[in-house]
Amino acid sequence: MIYLDNSATTYPKPQSVINAVGEAFSKFGANPGRSGHSFSIKTAIRVAEVREKIASFFNAESPENVIFTSGSTEALNLAILGSVKKGGHIICTSNDHNSALRPIFELEKQGLVEVSVASPKSDDKLRLSDIMPLVKENTYLICTNHISNVDGMETDISEIGRYAYKNGILFLVDSAQSAGHKQIDMLKQHIDFLAVAGHKGLYGPMGVGALVVSSKVALRPIKFGGTGTFSQNLTQPLDIPEGFESGTLPVPNILGLGAGVDFAIINQQKICQKLDDYTTYLNYQLNEIPGVKVYTHPDNANGVIAFNVGEMPSTEVSDFLDEKFGIMVRSGLHCAPLKHKHLGTIDQGVVRASISYFTTYSEIQKFLRAISILAKNDKI
Amino acid sequence: MIYLDNSATTYPKPQSVINAVGEAFSKFGANPGRSGHSFSIKTAIRVAEVREKIASFFNAESPENVIFTSGSTEALNLAILGSVKKGGHIICTSNDHNSALRPIFELEKQGLVEVSVASPKSDDKLRLSDIMPLVKENTYLICTNHISNVDGMETDISEIGRYAYKNGILFLVDSAQSAGHKQIDMLKQHIDFLAVAGHKGLYGPMGVGALVVSSKVALRPIKFGGTGTFSQNLTQPLDIPEGFESGTLPVPNILGLGAGVDFAIINQQKICQKLDDYTTYLNYQLNEIPGVKVYTHPDNANGVIAFNVGEMPSTEVSDFLDEKFGIMVRSGLHCAPLKHKHLGTIDQGVVRASISYFTTYSEIQKFLRAISILAKNDKI
Repeated sequence: MIYLDNSATTYPKPQSVINAVGEAFSKFGANPGRSGHSFSIKTAIRVAEVREKIASFFNAESPENVIFTSGSTEALNLAILGSVKKGGHIICTSNDHNSALRPIFELEKQGLVEVSVASPKSDDKLRLSDIMPLVKENTYLICTNHISNVDGMETDISEIGRYAYKNGILFLVDSAQSAGHKQIDMLKQHIDFLAVAGHKGLYGPMGVGALVVSSKVALRPIKFGGTGTFSQNLTQPLDIPEGFESGTLPVPNILGLGAGVDFAIINQQKICQKLDDYTTYLNYQLNEIPGVKVYTHPDNANGVIAFNVGEMPSTEVSDFLDEKFGIMVRSGLHCAPLKHKHLGTIDQGVVRASISYFTTYSEIQKFLRAISILAKNDKI
Repeated sequence: MIYLDNSATTYPKPQSVINAVGEAFSKFGANPGRSGHSFSIKTAIRVAEVREKIASFFNAESPENVIFTSGSTEALNLAILGSVKKGGHIICTSNDHNSALRPIFELEKQGLVEVSVASPKSDDKLRLSDIMPLVKENTYLICTNHISNVDGMETDISEIGRYAYKNGILFLVDSAQSAGHKQIDMLKQHIDFLAVAGHKGLYGPMGVGALVVSSKVALRPIKFGGTGTFSQNLTQPLDIPEGFESGTLPVPNILGLGAGVDFAIINQQKICQKLDDYTTYLNYQLNEIPGVKVYTHPDNANGVIAFNVGEMPSTEVSDFLDEKFGIMVRSGLHCAPLKHKHLGTIDQGVVRASISYFTTYSEIQKFLRAISILAKNDKI
């Protein structure tokens, strides 16, 4: 099998991640932050170490600003629903994933906020100049992903963050496709909410993520329950992170994520280099195949490449790759409808190949060969 | 170490659970329900098998009625917040955990519902007769846990379910402390919402649970995002389960939970017998120790025993057990404040020892010896 669906989840996971999950079962098997006994505390300390690791990796203000979630979807929901300002205005982008768009448009549907969608004017990047004309007096939140999960387009989060900071607007970055691959500095880039997926570029297990917040944010919980704190109160405590982590934490996943972050740190240069090289190579080579249309701009060498083969439905291409060559890619809309409207691919969808640390040059070659065969067979 | 904190999370987990988690990383590592390739489908089939297992275990109407969540807290939040009826009335119980109480009282705080709390009139059980006097014309939901996480008190869910069904009231059961230990039959017991914790009596990993629903319920989502379905829509789809499982599923945890359910099924008789025997034994033996007050009624032999040693703060008892004997128990309020008000232990808390399949008779003996030493030393 050739796995080129790493934007859905990276596979395989590093052995160190699998080991850390195993160790969670044997050595850190108590419920952290609930009981006061030493086994629980030992587990809680390990969880706290991962909190520290994540805070340091993204240069957050403190480990206490890291709220563990079940994934980036819950992180985005918490940021968007938990910071809603009645009568306010949110700017999101056409690059955004349904995990950001759907909670935002739910707030609009409820009549709580107005929403504007920024689209990139150029083919290479989403810039502050795409956002600025939409800003209104009641704009309180700018939400964008860092890297598009469809075509790898980057958003210039540094300049948007600076602008948001100066204008007292909260800035939410969905790093699902970038964390681990691109450097993110919450303090320097003035990010107020960073939604993190644990199981993609951070190489952790599926089922964990984080919302990392700045101290500027006043968050309301969206999930209520036991926090192990202020247990006598029927009202949810508002301390960050405890008040926002109701219920038992996914300890094996968190410890796995910790090992994944270590892996991403140790191999950062290698990962960035590989993603850059392979994406660039794929882009140029796919462009050479007659009938293939590549949507990814060559400057966005972020491990994601989007293309179509003639007029073929994208799902037919992915089925062909799977059935004839054992190559796994994702086709269709990738939960990002506005992006596809922007690209003009809402009916055809696109084929997406995505790369990880473990992708090999030989796999890339086999993939290109398969596309080349398909394009010829299709007599385009 | 002697681990008697199984109500917080069972430890150790069965080897089959750990193996299933490991296998998830090696053989079922794709994102299920996202891409259409064979590796994703293979993973999705495994996830579907666990859905079937859970549906069958609780006699739910169909596997599609099983919504995977990050745990029972998310399940309770989804049931309570997702079914809210403005101007309606909810009955909960003093046995309930903050994971049910806090979302319910949040709705009351928002002025959306009225709330009444039922308390058991007798020491042994919470019965329909405790609930009935509180029913009003606008009562639309009765919420109770099945087994109290503090003292193991059982609620007669069969008679309450029958009554709720006849009176058109939705019935929510929090099975966090009972699933796997007590038989639950959603159809026969007329349960509309069953909140399930994966990591306790079902022996799965921390970080997974389920809300199992009847076909009577009309649920609104509380989390919005990618569902892999209707991706072109910015509005959340309302299909069960997809519309309520936004984001990537915790595949390793789900497959681990599947193995845990198998373990609970295979060992059901043995588990029930052991819990009954050990809890009964502990109850009688603790009652023999001068100065020890046991709160658990002898008829509630459900693997949980609550007690205090004289006037000692419960946390001092648990610290003593940990430091002197390496025995892990949980003290304090156990996120169940109304229960402690009812027991009159809101200041002292209680010490809770809780049992699993893996608890041994020799551990029980050592625990009893330690309590006996402590009670003597304290010169009560």
